[in-house]
Amino acid sequence: MKPVKRRGLLIILSSPSGAGKSTLARRLMQWDETLSFSVSATTRPPRPGEVDGREYYFRSRPEFLAMVEAGEMLEHAEVFGNFYGSPKGPVEAAIADGRDVLFDIDWQGGQQVTNSALKDAVVSIFILPPSIAELERRLNTRGQDSPGVIAARMSKSQAEISHWAEYDYVLINDDLDTCDAALKTILMAERLKRNRRPDLVGHVRNLNTEFEGLKT
Amino acid sequence: MKPVKRRGLLIILSSPSGAGKSTLARRLMQWDETLSFSVSATTRPPRPGEVDGREYYFRSRPEFLAMVEAGEMLEHAEVFGNFYGSPKGPVEAAIADGRDVLFDIDWQGGQQVTNSALKDAVVSIFILPPSIAELERRLNTRGQDSPGVIAARMSKSQAEISHWAEYDYVLINDDLDTCDAALKTILMAERLKRNRRPDLVGHVRNLNTEFEGLKT
Repeated sequence: MKPVKRRGLLIILSSPSGAGKSTLARRLMQWDETLSFSVSATTRPPRPGEVDGREYYFRSRPEFLAMVEAGEMLEHAEVFGNFYGSPKGPVEAAIADGRDVLFDIDWQGGQQVTNSALKDAVVSIFILPPSIAELERRLNTRGQDSPGVIAARMSKSQAEISHWAEYDYVLINDDLDTCDAALKTILMAERLKRNRRPDLVGHVRNLNTEFEGLKT
Repeated sequence: MKPVKRRGLLIILSSPSGAGKSTLARRLMQWDETLSFSVSATTRPPRPGEVDGREYYFRSRPEFLAMVEAGEMLEHAEVFGNFYGSPKGPVEAAIADGRDVLFDIDWQGGQQVTNSALKDAVVSIFILPPSIAELERRLNTRGQDSPGVIAARMSKSQAEISHWAEYDYVLINDDLDTCDAALKTILMAERLKRNRRPDLVGHVRNLNTEFEGLKT
């Protein structure tokens, strides 16, 4: 009998801006090369250095809305006047192939994926900052945003944090290495869950065949 | 405000005899000294070297049944004419104190704890042998049982294994170190789950207080 293929997990990583989510996502991708990253589509214009299909799929508003209309988005939401969404095709292809998919999305996207038809495969993790002072400091240190943008981000951060209780796991990122190790631990354990290991059915069938052999 | 204390987990470890469960349990206890081991009560007579309160609480049949009657057993079952059970008192004291409790019990006990009032705190793990030939070899190598007893154990093993699908996690113990590491990973991840971390509520409240301070 052909072994049943494991279905991949949907790993949702959310956090306010500046809590270290992107760094953690990058580390996770480097640690496990089988992981697939879900590149979001957006209607916001590319920033200098951003490449279509790498940071985002950059789409016009009509193009984006046509994808939504065609049911090609796993989740989507409008934030600060721009649309963001996760195209469904690459995700379904990856998990059918047994590869886990990492999502770097906000609470709106997280809610939609967690309540989608794929919900049984979802593992959701929220990253909290150790303090708001530290969050603000990190945003200022990055130096890529104006004070006005930072103020807007802080306001969005409070709204984002208010959704922490909708996630399976919540980590406080006061030390990057500790938080990184915890993320990997979660991923390893989630992969060990019985209902995510179709290999077990064949193994137990083999054990039973051996038992029956002992009786003859 | 006083910090809310974390409630301990009930970690159930089941497996057929010879799959390595006792070794794994011992390693887990050595790795984490805060873990509390649930010593079972039994009506079977002590074997040479066994100490009351260490391997088991050795009780007479009337004593055991009186404990059951008084609701002092978390689970109990009769196996090969002897009663076995987990006294409730030490377990409740440990988890109220924030310590996880490790149970080395069979599928009957596992079922009862998993369906008890404490079910939200249960993490259940089943250990499978790589093969029945290997299981038999390990039982023979131990050299502590007669061929008749081994045959009876093998029969019980098949019944035990038939319940693998009732557990949260299932591990195949073909390498002790790998299996040991997997067990520790599961325990670490389970402790990171949001609903097991009452510390998060206070942390998020502090973050919100900081946000409100920024607005004034």
